[in-house]
Amino acid sequence: MHIIKNPSPKQWPDLLKRPTQSLESIETKVEEVFKEVSAKGDQAILKYTQLFDGVALSNFKVTPQEIEEAKNLVPQELQQAIQQAKENITKFHAAQRTKPLRVETQNGVECWQEKRPIQKVGLYIPGGSAPLFSTILMLAIPANLAGCQEIVLCSPPNKEGKLDPAILYTANLCGVTNLLKVGGIQAIAGMTFGTESIPQVYKIFGPGNQFVTVAKQLATKYNVAIDMPAGPSELLVFADETAKANFVASDLLSQAEHGADSQVILVTTSEKMLQEVEKEVKKQLESLPRKQMTAKAIQNSKLILMNTEKSALALINAYAPEHFIVVSKNEDFFINGIQNAGSVFIGNYTPESAGDYASGTNHTLPTNGFAKQYSGVNLDSFLKSMTFQKIDATGIKNLGKTIELMAEAEGLHAHKNAVSLRLKSLE
Amino acid sequence: MHIIKNPSPKQWPDLLKRPTQSLESIETKVEEVFKEVSAKGDQAILKYTQLFDGVALSNFKVTPQEIEEAKNLVPQELQQAIQQAKENITKFHAAQRTKPLRVETQNGVECWQEKRPIQKVGLYIPGGSAPLFSTILMLAIPANLAGCQEIVLCSPPNKEGKLDPAILYTANLCGVTNLLKVGGIQAIAGMTFGTESIPQVYKIFGPGNQFVTVAKQLATKYNVAIDMPAGPSELLVFADETAKANFVASDLLSQAEHGADSQVILVTTSEKMLQEVEKEVKKQLESLPRKQMTAKAIQNSKLILMNTEKSALALINAYAPEHFIVVSKNEDFFINGIQNAGSVFIGNYTPESAGDYASGTNHTLPTNGFAKQYSGVNLDSFLKSMTFQKIDATGIKNLGKTIELMAEAEGLHAHKNAVSLRLKSLE
Repeated sequence: MHIIKNPSPKQWPDLLKRPTQSLESIETKVEEVFKEVSAKGDQAILKYTQLFDGVALSNFKVTPQEIEEAKNLVPQELQQAIQQAKENITKFHAAQRTKPLRVETQNGVECWQEKRPIQKVGLYIPGGSAPLFSTILMLAIPANLAGCQEIVLCSPPNKEGKLDPAILYTANLCGVTNLLKVGGIQAIAGMTFGTESIPQVYKIFGPGNQFVTVAKQLATKYNVAIDMPAGPSELLVFADETAKANFVASDLLSQAEHGADSQVILVTTSEKMLQEVEKEVKKQLESLPRKQMTAKAIQNSKLILMNTEKSALALINAYAPEHFIVVSKNEDFFINGIQNAGSVFIGNYTPESAGDYASGTNHTLPTNGFAKQYSGVNLDSFLKSMTFQKIDATGIKNLGKTIELMAEAEGLHAHKNAVSLRLKSLE
Repeated sequence: MHIIKNPSPKQWPDLLKRPTQSLESIETKVEEVFKEVSAKGDQAILKYTQLFDGVALSNFKVTPQEIEEAKNLVPQELQQAIQQAKENITKFHAAQRTKPLRVETQNGVECWQEKRPIQKVGLYIPGGSAPLFSTILMLAIPANLAGCQEIVLCSPPNKEGKLDPAILYTANLCGVTNLLKVGGIQAIAGMTFGTESIPQVYKIFGPGNQFVTVAKQLATKYNVAIDMPAGPSELLVFADETAKANFVASDLLSQAEHGADSQVILVTTSEKMLQEVEKEVKKQLESLPRKQMTAKAIQNSKLILMNTEKSALALINAYAPEHFIVVSKNEDFFINGIQNAGSVFIGNYTPESAGDYASGTNHTLPTNGFAKQYSGVNLDSFLKSMTFQKIDATGIKNLGKTIELMAEAEGLHAHKNAVSLRLKSLE
């Protein structure tokens, strides 16, 4: 762990720098897969599934029977946990619904704004050693609440050509409409172009490895939107002397276990806390099953001592963490002052794990400093805002002269004429 | 004008295809300018301003004196028109403010969502034959309402090294904080990297030619967000026999005068209306100053007759127009059924020009079919949504078991441990 004491603002950019990922080397591969999926559809999907996932499938659509079987394979206790998480996530995201907003800006000029669902969305759920069913909750629940008509989910099959029962169970519970056993670049390509079995979608959500990241970037060139640019997950904890060092250490470690490139930072105004956390991390690390990988991320982690809360907050805003835990006797100072963070966790009893799974907030959040300009996934991510306006004869009389003057000054005479004709007809 | 009668859904994709822009040829040039601006700052900006805009400047920051002078150069009548437009746009965008949203998802688990401003934004206003001051209203007003701290505006200088007085007047009126005489690729590069004179920004807004479009795309590779991908402007009008053909024609022409690549479409269920509109367009075209260019876009325009309102609506949703004017005895059918459109204009007295300038809605809208997944610019475009959560001892007791079960099932033991430690401390 790197200990840094009172760095000057000049040192911040270097200190807070994220590792840069060079993804150019895999762009060629990704483009190749896109071309083939675009040209050959399902045939190309099956080819790359065999090549990359090592399994020969004849059909990659999940059957109702597979979903039925999954229900019996997920332990009752876990089913109940997933249901409770679903309930909380639903509550928080349903509350984000907004009503149409009507404003009569002038007499006879009525303007309104309404949100309507993105009709077709694609969700990507990575494979790997464990089934990330929690991400299905985070994406399919708001998609469903938003009213998206088609909710397509792609996830790579295992060596037996199957999806994990927890994935199937959760996808079915959350109203996914098309469930497909396809992963990686070929899944993103499939949802971008559409194939015989995979519906084309308008926006793609979800995490993934570097191949998926590059594929999502490439998808935007083919007019598909994506949730946000991706980077390694991050946690920054601010803890003063009111924090419990063993809790703080457990949070830092929970971030570190995501992978060797996880970003883990403690900022504190208490030298004692810094030392205690360092000790606790070492101690707790010993008993973790993912010890080796977790230790790697911890090696690169930073413990930063700051003189004042004010400079600590400025540093945190400059970093713009994905997850920000704050345990401070002056928590309101941080809550009110934080400008750039994906999600904020407040107090000793609010571990990041709570938001990762079940408190109700979304865990798909901006990494890599993108909290400066991007929102995490929320209900609006599945909607688009449209405006409407209706002007009557009185309205165009009130507004017409203004439009004519402005259009003329911009040299747009046909724009002016569209108003002049109407005004003339009302004389 | 191309007349198409009752095309079958199979023909729609070809019929509704936008012209594809190949921008790859200019990518190299754009990358070159980015590299040089990144390395040499203001020096590179001045070099490219001389090269591309043909003017040698020693300083490209607008001075308070220039702004003061502009006030005297903009006709009083136009100033008043701009002020009225500002008032309406302010009313409509201020109404879009949302309050923090608090939900106690379970006893002791409090979650909330709050929107906070993107601290630094950049607005690009193209040059050309006429000053597009209306776009300043559309971008700077919501930026200001959102509370963005730095609102940087770049616009290319004319041959005398100046900005149009209407640009200066409007920018000053709408609270732009940094006003710079720099255009094209070098402006986007400057706002992406920051230079001695140009602040680095987090998100770039605004229209532009193909060089600006490619530069904005490239900016996203350097972690800057953009408002939306760009394409030629579009208008689709649905008019039945209750529409006035001369009004419809004037709207189609106002779209066509934007440029030869403008997309202009009429959809109607009335053969008579189709014929009348065709006649009116030819008639009105004769008296327009931009006749030649407008005629080019009109040549490529489409007049589509559909058998039923239902099929007309389906076609319109498949196209996803930037601007959608509907004049119909069944307007509610279209208002309720439109799923994909940037902005909707309803009835005989609602020309697109109204929304372009002064009704209150925003004119920065998704083109190229992006209305399927993107919102037009609105107040939220200048904010990001952050979530917060605070869990107390009761809350973690209520929620803890659920998190432990889910974390364990995903193989994330440190995530589980962060909860277990807290639960144990409360036993």
